[in-house]
Amino acid sequence: MDVKTLGTLGERGAIKVIDGIVKSEADVGIGDDCAAIDIGDRYLLVTTDMMAGKTHVPKGMSPYDVGWTLVAVNLSDIAAMGGTPWGVVTAIGITRGHPIDFLGQIVDGMNDCAQRFDTSIVGGDTKEHESLALCGTAIGEVPKDEILLRKGAKPGDLVAVSGELGMAGAGYFSMKRSLSLNEAEGVLKRPWPRLREARVLAASGIVTSCMDISDGLSSSIYELSRNSGLTYEIDYSRIPKAKEVDEAFRDLERQKSLVLNFGDDFELLFTVKREAEEELKTLSVKADCPFTVIGKVTSGEENILIDESKRERLENLGYEHFRSRQS
Amino acid sequence: MDVKTLGTLGERGAIKVIDGIVKSEADVGIGDDCAAIDIGDRYLLVTTDMMAGKTHVPKGMSPYDVGWTLVAVNLSDIAAMGGTPWGVVTAIGITRGHPIDFLGQIVDGMNDCAQRFDTSIVGGDTKEHESLALCGTAIGEVPKDEILLRKGAKPGDLVAVSGELGMAGAGYFSMKRSLSLNEAEGVLKRPWPRLREARVLAASGIVTSCMDISDGLSSSIYELSRNSGLTYEIDYSRIPKAKEVDEAFRDLERQKSLVLNFGDDFELLFTVKREAEEELKTLSVKADCPFTVIGKVTSGEENILIDESKRERLENLGYEHFRSRQS
Repeated sequence: MDVKTLGTLGERGAIKVIDGIVKSEADVGIGDDCAAIDIGDRYLLVTTDMMAGKTHVPKGMSPYDVGWTLVAVNLSDIAAMGGTPWGVVTAIGITRGHPIDFLGQIVDGMNDCAQRFDTSIVGGDTKEHESLALCGTAIGEVPKDEILLRKGAKPGDLVAVSGELGMAGAGYFSMKRSLSLNEAEGVLKRPWPRLREARVLAASGIVTSCMDISDGLSSSIYELSRNSGLTYEIDYSRIPKAKEVDEAFRDLERQKSLVLNFGDDFELLFTVKREAEEELKTLSVKADCPFTVIGKVTSGEENILIDESKRERLENLGYEHFRSRQS
Repeated sequence: MDVKTLGTLGERGAIKVIDGIVKSEADVGIGDDCAAIDIGDRYLLVTTDMMAGKTHVPKGMSPYDVGWTLVAVNLSDIAAMGGTPWGVVTAIGITRGHPIDFLGQIVDGMNDCAQRFDTSIVGGDTKEHESLALCGTAIGEVPKDEILLRKGAKPGDLVAVSGELGMAGAGYFSMKRSLSLNEAEGVLKRPWPRLREARVLAASGIVTSCMDISDGLSSSIYELSRNSGLTYEIDYSRIPKAKEVDEAFRDLERQKSLVLNFGDDFELLFTVKREAEEELKTLSVKADCPFTVIGKVTSGEENILIDESKRERLENLGYEHFRSRQS
């Protein structure tokens, strides 16, 4: 019998199956970082993320890190829409053989992350499960005229990122090969949602589209491209690369792959109006966070990577579930 | 090494561990059916529920049923607080070996249930996982003066339930022993959240406390008792027993156990002001749903079951995760 499985389809294929069935009444629907529901004077934001034991918990992450990460990735989705969190609920599926202390540490990490970002775990569910499965849902709000969406960019807009890229990837390889890149490992283990920075951007009015880079820069560029119907030209030399990337790999091609494709940095990828480059610098100071222009929005044939004056097609090589991780 | 596991602690013990750590800023915190967040003019309600493959999916449930149930149990929590749903997000952890059609059927069930209750799946997440894990989160709203909580009952208040009890339990044993009690099996496979009925109750102002009976009547009575600090006297003869219970078991003790302890009926258990018995009848007609008084709130020593003029202690025998199911 020839039954097609999810392994043959991949995550994006699976999402298409779901999109074909679900009739959403959200004002901003499936496919953005959060769903946005019009509640009169503002949008309610809601986002959910599941983490599964083997797939999402690299060796070396403590239960505390796992709890922190679960909350952080959901808050990062609220940030990507320019929102302020109201609270987080978490569901924990865990085996009866897990030590009580293991559960306690997960919850400690969840609680600490929520508190650190001025919100709280407002409720949850704990169930027995064959293997560890965690699900977090963050709720938030955003003023209607400040919502940041994946769509909205216009040709000529500038493409920018917050922070530095490749840090989490460097952390991953540091853990794998005992390189002791502690700061990079910290970024991987305890992602830092850019909530405050995103609010500064959202309130400025110069941002035309935004998302968080959870699955890698290249895949996120393709996501913005799909949403705007436009193309993106990225200048590799302008991408703010974490110095830890150099420490993880000497090989320039491997560095490039890390910066472009690894993901897990949870930085913001956004576009701003073409005349706003100076204002972006001011906002960067205000937010106390680097905001760096790395390219521009075009209406070309395909997404382009410029590397030392060589123009090449930007490959979409981000992480996709149900398929094997490249590295 | 003597490591205490969750198996020794049980679900309620696990929840205590979590309560000891989490600092919630919700206005109604962990332990009620939903968390309620004050958003100015009303409360935002949010609830999350996880379903794990083996533990929560009895043989005979189709993927469609599983999807329906995931949404229904979350909407039932919104109902228990007197709320109206704004939307549901669902996270699906599934193996790469699952057929694409299996995912499609789950999503069909989720979508149909949401639509049936005038809401929608507004977003979600799909991830690879070692085994099937589903997590639903429902968001809703309730006017501040109409919120129904687990606490609030006063001595002398009447205890009431919606619908009939034991239906889902009869369905469970019907499936197990091929009794063909189709309606009962339907209740088990496709729970029916009492959203409309709960709104009628909430708007009336006569309800002093409420929850849904997901884990069985006895366990829910203990839950109300813990929240109100009072005791409850239940008259077994007044409990509206589904006729399917008689068809599932001749033995009266087994019937009693089903009605008191099985759960999964997703009916409402609530208290009303003592003078409101007549008004409750009017509301029952209005909601087109039986609302039946089954006892009263007392300030005694323990929760009591009156069975043919015999007064006995009501045992707390509801379903608890991490421990084995009684039957």
